[in-house]
Amino acid sequence: MKPTGPIPAGYETLDGELAIGGRTVSQLVEDAGETPLFVYSRRLLDQRMADLRAVMPDRLAIHYAVKANPHDNVIRHMAGLVDGFDIASGGELAIMQRLGMDAGPISFAGPGKRDRELDAAIMAGATLNLESESEAERALAIAAKNGMTPRLAIRVNPDFEMKGSGMKMGGGAKPFGVDAERVPELGRQIIAAGADFRGLHIYTGSQALSAESLIETQGNVLDLATRLTDEIGVDLPKLNMGGGFGIPYFDKDQPLDITAIGAGLEQRFANLPPRLANTHLCIELGRYLVGEAGVYLTRILDRKVSHGESYLVTDGGLHHQLAASGNFGTVIRRNYPVAIANRFEAAPIEVASIVGCLCTPLDRLLDKAHLPRAEVGDLVAVFCAGAYGATASPSAFLGQGPALELLV
Amino acid sequence: MKPTGPIPAGYETLDGELAIGGRTVSQLVEDAGETPLFVYSRRLLDQRMADLRAVMPDRLAIHYAVKANPHDNVIRHMAGLVDGFDIASGGELAIMQRLGMDAGPISFAGPGKRDRELDAAIMAGATLNLESESEAERALAIAAKNGMTPRLAIRVNPDFEMKGSGMKMGGGAKPFGVDAERVPELGRQIIAAGADFRGLHIYTGSQALSAESLIETQGNVLDLATRLTDEIGVDLPKLNMGGGFGIPYFDKDQPLDITAIGAGLEQRFANLPPRLANTHLCIELGRYLVGEAGVYLTRILDRKVSHGESYLVTDGGLHHQLAASGNFGTVIRRNYPVAIANRFEAAPIEVASIVGCLCTPLDRLLDKAHLPRAEVGDLVAVFCAGAYGATASPSAFLGQGPALELLV
Repeated sequence: MKPTGPIPAGYETLDGELAIGGRTVSQLVEDAGETPLFVYSRRLLDQRMADLRAVMPDRLAIHYAVKANPHDNVIRHMAGLVDGFDIASGGELAIMQRLGMDAGPISFAGPGKRDRELDAAIMAGATLNLESESEAERALAIAAKNGMTPRLAIRVNPDFEMKGSGMKMGGGAKPFGVDAERVPELGRQIIAAGADFRGLHIYTGSQALSAESLIETQGNVLDLATRLTDEIGVDLPKLNMGGGFGIPYFDKDQPLDITAIGAGLEQRFANLPPRLANTHLCIELGRYLVGEAGVYLTRILDRKVSHGESYLVTDGGLHHQLAASGNFGTVIRRNYPVAIANRFEAAPIEVASIVGCLCTPLDRLLDKAHLPRAEVGDLVAVFCAGAYGATASPSAFLGQGPALELLV
Repeated sequence: MKPTGPIPAGYETLDGELAIGGRTVSQLVEDAGETPLFVYSRRLLDQRMADLRAVMPDRLAIHYAVKANPHDNVIRHMAGLVDGFDIASGGELAIMQRLGMDAGPISFAGPGKRDRELDAAIMAGATLNLESESEAERALAIAAKNGMTPRLAIRVNPDFEMKGSGMKMGGGAKPFGVDAERVPELGRQIIAAGADFRGLHIYTGSQALSAESLIETQGNVLDLATRLTDEIGVDLPKLNMGGGFGIPYFDKDQPLDITAIGAGLEQRFANLPPRLANTHLCIELGRYLVGEAGVYLTRILDRKVSHGESYLVTDGGLHHQLAASGNFGTVIRRNYPVAIANRFEAAPIEVASIVGCLCTPLDRLLDKAHLPRAEVGDLVAVFCAGAYGATASPSAFLGQGPALELLV
């Protein structure tokens, strides 16, 4: 038997079923008309932001990293909660424009930006987080051709890493950003070229669950920004301190202590050097804002026994839940939080595995876990499906197609 | 420095560039109008099938597993080469129907078939490879409701595994098929229920590069089929012996010795028991038929140095090449065959990594490899992109969208 990840706090039960937005999963699926289905909770999105605001310094702006979940209604809802957006492609810019979002508080990072993406971002007035000197040249040339003053920030490849992060994005050679020691010269160059210098972007890692590591890293980020700003020789307009706030996916993972992080930032913000006195300070969060607010619901099509082991076969799978299947960025497969959603309060009485409908042994949503007795027709909930679910999975695999998505 | 996988045989060079279908990669990209681009070669598809036909017993039918590459033009082309198709979902059935393909030589396997998928397959006249007793019940009920005689085969979970296969699909508890010892009873039941019994499907693994293992496994499959057929008590109409033929992706991988496999099958086919004397014997191949015939082309947008290491940043990435990035079904990342396509004959003079445009360290197409000097605007070719590329990758990730696909 293998342990299951922790079910996020804040979910309700109605008539013994998991409920979201006041509706049981059975009702949600009936209203949607089919499975699989992603359900995102407005209440949990609101709650997460309220919890953050309560403990973070007033001065700290919170931006949403659209790549975590670019569903139209999620973006619309987040627009009422956050102070800005971070995008990672021209495709995400197009989504924001289609939704009528103001590009002012949008910044665009990504190591491989095409000319047409730079062009669209400059024309929209978004801030480009420059990833290299040659990208800076291209951006300046495109802006000049268009008669625009580009809003340019520099993404820094920091000379330290975030300890304990699930995915390191700084420290040593990296394809992201400009090595710290070359940043001052580039900063002076783009200012001299007449760009609207928007400051620095320092992203060090993601999915960290240790407040201590995050506080230490944020301190290092502020120190590095101070040093680089001194060398550039201007007051820093804006500092994107990155994100990296993780959520618990697996057994024994503990929720992040955001109170400690808020206090740590408060302390640092009280002692900023003059060049950072009026800096717009922000963090960009994706997974942390939306991850735990989403559930993936899939229906059991078959229950079968093979050589004494029980399998529940669903109509969903890794084509919508690549990471939950253990096939994206993980070395050892571990169980996400998963439950029989319409028997949410039933006691576990058997050990079973839950698999997807794809004809591949990779398609496993839960491995040998302790579960209530589930039958054909029952609904399985995969939690932590609000971030890096629908769009981070190969939805066309084996002719399946995308799942429905619903904000309730 | 890390080794690069072996470039498949049969590719041409024109004016120093990689060429496919008589056009250089530069021409192909210009004609297509953009990158990234999948290019599939008719000639290499034809060659692969001709090579197989030359060494396999005349009696062996060769089926194409659509999931490997369901691009319309690839399916159309394969229809002129193979004896049948295997599909894995109602979505793939819909593709085949849209392309006007006869459902007669189509069989449908997959552990989680929805009622509407069973219905569509039965109405079309495709053969269902039943994955469980309860799926058999559902299929019979749906056929009865529609007044149809369903074509039903049984997928067997064999009691042995394929040694040395990249992905084991038999031996022990599995979500696929019916455990061997329960197959005879189910066979007799569906025959008694009036179904058109279409025989057995025994799939044991995939991506095997050892002819010896494949020959041994095929022998075991024929033995098992013989035993099960005796117990069912009818002549076996059809036996799908599975596939599992692998292709070389990584350094030191050797191409499969298909001559040895053909000879091994010939020998076994000469000594089949009476109940298999007139059996339609087939193998189903996906990756082996199309994998090496496809190339993924992506343009270099930036070249940068970080802490002394060189990076070539492209406009493609893991959103089209999840497996090549090392993030799908592999524990240790190794380099696929990758080359600077428009400098195909240039000598390697530097060590560089090739990364995609996504803002994640997972997005690496080639790690620290020996390459010719490449510049911005050059084209990178990722080989072995004909199978499990476009549809087995999260194309919507970070707002990117699907790549173009071209059969030339």
